[in-house]
Amino acid sequence: MEESFVPFRGIKNDLQGRLMCYKQDWTSGLRAGFRILAPTTYIFFASAIPVISFGEQLERDTDGVLTAVQTLASTALCGIIHSIIGGQPLLILGVAEPTVIMYTFMFNFAKNRPDLGSKLFLAWAGWVNVWTALLLFLFAILGACSIINRFTRLAGELFGLLIAMLFMQQAIKGLVDEFRIPERENPRLIEFQPSWRFANGMFALVLSFGLLLTALRSRKARSWRYGSGWLRGLVADYGVPLMVLVWTGTSYLPAGSIPKGIPRRLFSPNPWSPGAYENWTVMKDMLDVPVFYIIGAFVPATMIAVLYYFDHSVASQLAQQKEFNLRKPPSFHYDLLLLGFLTIFCGLIGIPPSNGVIPQSPMHTKSLATLKHQLLRNRLVATARKCMGMNASLGQVYGSMQEAYQQMQTPLIYQEPSAQGLKDLKESTIQMASSMGNINAPIDETVFDVEKEIDDLLPVEVKEQRLSNLLQAVMVGGCVAAMPLIKKIPTSVLWGYFAFMAIESLPGNQFWERILLLFTAPSRRYKVLEEYHATFVETVPFKTIAVFTVFQAAYLLVCFGITWIPIAGVLFPLMIMLLVPVRQYILPKFFKGAHLQDLDAAEYEEAPALSFNRGTEVQISRSTSFADDGEALDGMITRSRGEIRRMCSLKLTSSTATPAKEFKSLQSPDKVFSPRVSELRGNQNPWSSGRGPFSPKNGEARMSNLGKSG
Amino acid sequence: MEESFVPFRGIKNDLQGRLMCYKQDWTSGLRAGFRILAPTTYIFFASAIPVISFGEQLERDTDGVLTAVQTLASTALCGIIHSIIGGQPLLILGVAEPTVIMYTFMFNFAKNRPDLGSKLFLAWAGWVNVWTALLLFLFAILGACSIINRFTRLAGELFGLLIAMLFMQQAIKGLVDEFRIPERENPRLIEFQPSWRFANGMFALVLSFGLLLTALRSRKARSWRYGSGWLRGLVADYGVPLMVLVWTGTSYLPAGSIPKGIPRRLFSPNPWSPGAYENWTVMKDMLDVPVFYIIGAFVPATMIAVLYYFDHSVASQLAQQKEFNLRKPPSFHYDLLLLGFLTIFCGLIGIPPSNGVIPQSPMHTKSLATLKHQLLRNRLVATARKCMGMNASLGQVYGSMQEAYQQMQTPLIYQEPSAQGLKDLKESTIQMASSMGNINAPIDETVFDVEKEIDDLLPVEVKEQRLSNLLQAVMVGGCVAAMPLIKKIPTSVLWGYFAFMAIESLPGNQFWERILLLFTAPSRRYKVLEEYHATFVETVPFKTIAVFTVFQAAYLLVCFGITWIPIAGVLFPLMIMLLVPVRQYILPKFFKGAHLQDLDAAEYEEAPALSFNRGTEVQISRSTSFADDGEALDGMITRSRGEIRRMCSLKLTSSTATPAKEFKSLQSPDKVFSPRVSELRGNQNPWSSGRGPFSPKNGEARMSNLGKSG
Repeated sequence: MEESFVPFRGIKNDLQGRLMCYKQDWTSGLRAGFRILAPTTYIFFASAIPVISFGEQLERDTDGVLTAVQTLASTALCGIIHSIIGGQPLLILGVAEPTVIMYTFMFNFAKNRPDLGSKLFLAWAGWVNVWTALLLFLFAILGACSIINRFTRLAGELFGLLIAMLFMQQAIKGLVDEFRIPERENPRLIEFQPSWRFANGMFALVLSFGLLLTALRSRKARSWRYGSGWLRGLVADYGVPLMVLVWTGTSYLPAGSIPKGIPRRLFSPNPWSPGAYENWTVMKDMLDVPVFYIIGAFVPATMIAVLYYFDHSVASQLAQQKEFNLRKPPSFHYDLLLLGFLTIFCGLIGIPPSNGVIPQSPMHTKSLATLKHQLLRNRLVATARKCMGMNASLGQVYGSMQEAYQQMQTPLIYQEPSAQGLKDLKESTIQMASSMGNINAPIDETVFDVEKEIDDLLPVEVKEQRLSNLLQAVMVGGCVAAMPLIKKIPTSVLWGYFAFMAIESLPGNQFWERILLLFTAPSRRYKVLEEYHATFVETVPFKTIAVFTVFQAAYLLVCFGITWIPIAGVLFPLMIMLLVPVRQYILPKFFKGAHLQDLDAAEYEEAPALSFNRGTEVQISRSTSFADDGEALDGMITRSRGEIRRMCSLKLTSSTATPAKEFKSLQSPDKVFSPRVSELRGNQNPWSSGRGPFSPKNGEARMSNLGKSG
Repeated sequence: MEESFVPFRGIKNDLQGRLMCYKQDWTSGLRAGFRILAPTTYIFFASAIPVISFGEQLERDTDGVLTAVQTLASTALCGIIHSIIGGQPLLILGVAEPTVIMYTFMFNFAKNRPDLGSKLFLAWAGWVNVWTALLLFLFAILGACSIINRFTRLAGELFGLLIAMLFMQQAIKGLVDEFRIPERENPRLIEFQPSWRFANGMFALVLSFGLLLTALRSRKARSWRYGSGWLRGLVADYGVPLMVLVWTGTSYLPAGSIPKGIPRRLFSPNPWSPGAYENWTVMKDMLDVPVFYIIGAFVPATMIAVLYYFDHSVASQLAQQKEFNLRKPPSFHYDLLLLGFLTIFCGLIGIPPSNGVIPQSPMHTKSLATLKHQLLRNRLVATARKCMGMNASLGQVYGSMQEAYQQMQTPLIYQEPSAQGLKDLKESTIQMASSMGNINAPIDETVFDVEKEIDDLLPVEVKEQRLSNLLQAVMVGGCVAAMPLIKKIPTSVLWGYFAFMAIESLPGNQFWERILLLFTAPSRRYKVLEEYHATFVETVPFKTIAVFTVFQAAYLLVCFGITWIPIAGVLFPLMIMLLVPVRQYILPKFFKGAHLQDLDAAEYEEAPALSFNRGTEVQISRSTSFADDGEALDGMITRSRGEIRRMCSLKLTSSTATPAKEFKSLQSPDKVFSPRVSELRGNQNPWSSGRGPFSPKNGEARMSNLGKSG
């Protein structure tokens, strides 16, 4: 994305790009068939559960003016609109914690003013939203999203980890509260006697840890050794919702012997009660708000606008990270414009607005990558099997697989010509054929097990379409109707789910992985090299990694501390935006350019070599393979631009590091997210000694980098 | 061990063999220094905790005549005596569940007889023990233990799994009881109100699962990536006791807000109370028992004698499995004789006798193998470092390592000449040197990382000595004095510990691994081949493995069912002994000899090729290596005789399977318990294609064995 501040240019570009693939966004989603339900359900739960919880929080804090019905309605309506006419359909919208905090603050302000009161609160909030929307329009038109380019991995991953910390904090706080008497409840109820309170807390521990542990396990089901393939796939795809059901069911097991209030369950208003819809007509009250307050609404509006601008763009960026190899264009400017309209819309019907959410948006992309992998895999395996059934040679089999692959490609390619993926597959064919002998001899499944080989051939791709986003939003809307069912979920299951979301967002975050590296014993650092790892592990001295990571962690803690400040706390994104100039002007004074490039590649620093780098990057990242039915994606590790630099240099220089790469593709192929090795060939027999993970000469030489500097 | 039924010959042989190494049993233990405390503590907990629990059970069932004080005293006294004058010091003695059941039965019998009553119960039990001892003497003298040879893996592993099931059953039963009002307690106490009972049950779930999960994790600490080496070692060595402390501490956290009886804790008498020692003078009452009952005592005595003969021998056998490469001789006959004396001794002082216990005995050997590995490792690494500091060549470094290795060898070798281990090390040297270039060039640590290489060089060996057994028995005795402290352990932690013991006993049990194989998806069976696996996986058709395993599992369930029969249930070992003729005469009619040999090698079937096989076996099994500070031992997989047959055939025929073996030593060296590959060399460059886990040609050919038959 170019940096352009010419008014409307960004929006125009976005619209042009997305319109080109609009039809395909729908046809592609529909062609996926029932399998689209797996990512849909996964994201639906990730989207609905926090929104319900925030709704409860809002209900407590606004004396019931706003409830989970309103937060769900906003999430559903905005989600449906965005999925249909939004730019980037990978982006998930929802009512987020900062919105809840701002609304709470606004309610506390309004209810104490005699000329507003809680009666006119929603009308006033409507004005706040109008102002917010105007600011968002301004941002969108002036191309403010262009500077998202300057927003590097450093800031993005810090933000991601901060969100994970906030989710985890919520989980812990929720669990601790299970031992306490909730506010606004009658403390004389039987379930709030000390004994039952303690019992409730312990039960909550069992339920939330039960959910957390089983949900984490179920996500890894594809790599399980036991059970048939479809069962493992089913558990991996639907395990988390299933576990919510299972643990909710478990919470009813001791029902006979305990009071009704144990364990505590979600509390939500009946959506059919007469008072539940007062907010929808808030528009007619808006002119009753005194002018002074209408103008004053500009103050909270600036805060919300900055917040939304930041959250929305970052959520969108994190859903479109380089390593996903997306083929359709981004749409930052237009999406921000649309967000403005959505904000006004929500304001006028008296519900809190939604914006792009983390970690749901990147979770969405990840789950669609798994889906795409399965679709590609099934198709190519079927093709290969059919060919082998006709006594075809290896060459013929690959030929037909290439054809099938091409047929499944998105016809509208934004980033590169379609031949690229095909070329990759072809290269692998030749390489593989030569390793197996005659390319023209007929082969069968005992010689060539397509089920296993296929995973080395497939690049990471994402099923980019609008259907999953639309469906999940519709399902969130369905929650309003299903409220009587949702109320059966124990709050403790919710806390377990919050912890699950926090933990699910960690893998792939290089910042997190660098923190882990700091705690890795020096003698065990070679294990990091054995697995898939980012370039910086090999190219940047350990001490530099440590200093960089400690700086980032300290910054994270400061941001986390800021969130605890009562109202100004919602502005913590400003701290994160401050990282842009810090990264651009201050960090280069403390770190070598090359190291900084590997740790945190910034586009503006790469400008001169852009054309070359971009071409190479695409080729390499396309050739990235992942193994065994997509299970590697669960533990997918994001790859920086630096990775490509590394690969390029390998082509030119002698291949001292080659054995490690080759070795990586040898060992545990189902765990390793390994690049194809065609570029790395040359050193033909480094492993014939058949010993240890590193042949001493090469392995140790590279190890010294880590071992000595630590 | 030969089969010999000449009276006294077995005892004489045992005594001769063990006397030869008696002095070394002590000096070797003392030389290990403080490190001996790791296995000692580990076994002390495994020994004491069940004994305390059985003591509680006995106290409930004998109206307090026998308590945990008596069971602990018996375990400690018998343990101390056996560790000093017993034959096989790897064998752990303790009061076991069958003894508790028999004593309960005897108490119920005695208390209803007017001329016995609970007053003369212990005196009568003394007579039972006298008869039992006489029978044991008879068995020992007549060489009954000789037939332990006929007791194959089939029966041994079935018994091991049955014990694990019984431990797990106890854990589940205990947890369920935490929700109930205990018998003999006042149900009107505050902690037995429904609310507190429910709270207690939930707290128990948290504590027991907390202990189970953290204890299992801590045992794997050596392979953790985080934390320094000594910390990981400390956690792995002392993690389980530590976790008992941690979770006991946790149980006190909510002490302020809950009644004193929650969570429930161990209940034991004060060992200093006046009535606690009545039993010690039971001898003087023994002549008060009516003659009729003295003679009648023979009936339970036969049951107990058969039970002890079986348990003691099998526990001893499982502690001396082939794969441990023990160098000191066994001592079945003499140990059974000694058990007779111990039984009389316990009977005369009115405490229940102890016998060899499972799974503690094999756990003991395993933990000593870890210890020995660490000692060898530290010594050799230090030697190598010293050499390299003096600019030595690779040849010199290995020379000095070999010297150090030889110095650490047990001087008294029973199974083979000492040169064997040395020769192995030498072979590896040459092989490694050739892979690294010039054997005479000076090397340093960047080229040769001794810390990593060492693990490939070391064979499995066990620190065979008497000190750990003596110390653990003394510590068990100390528990009597420490009873006020032990009473602080919550019963729920106990149930977690029972589950932990059950799970700890599973790895290495081929029967268990075959059950897992049955549930492994056909498409995932290749993963079994990638890891360390027993020969049968490759040589026996899957269908045969399945039939054999289903038969064994059905037999296991029958045995498990029998344990539920009120009193006759204790005789389930008879069912297991029945497996000896089943294996010898019936199974060969349903299974091919070769398959049976691979699934369950029996010594009597190997007789003709004994000399050759034995020599080879020793060589191979000695060359087995395990990696990374002994962590592999945690997941150690037992190796059948069949494994050796496999390796021999490889030497003669072409090496189609070689790549898999070579691959195994390439990949994840810290997980795989791989044989050294010097024998398997010949196919020099099978992996240059750098792809997948199996090169298609070889891998698939072998896979078809599994894939097609399934």
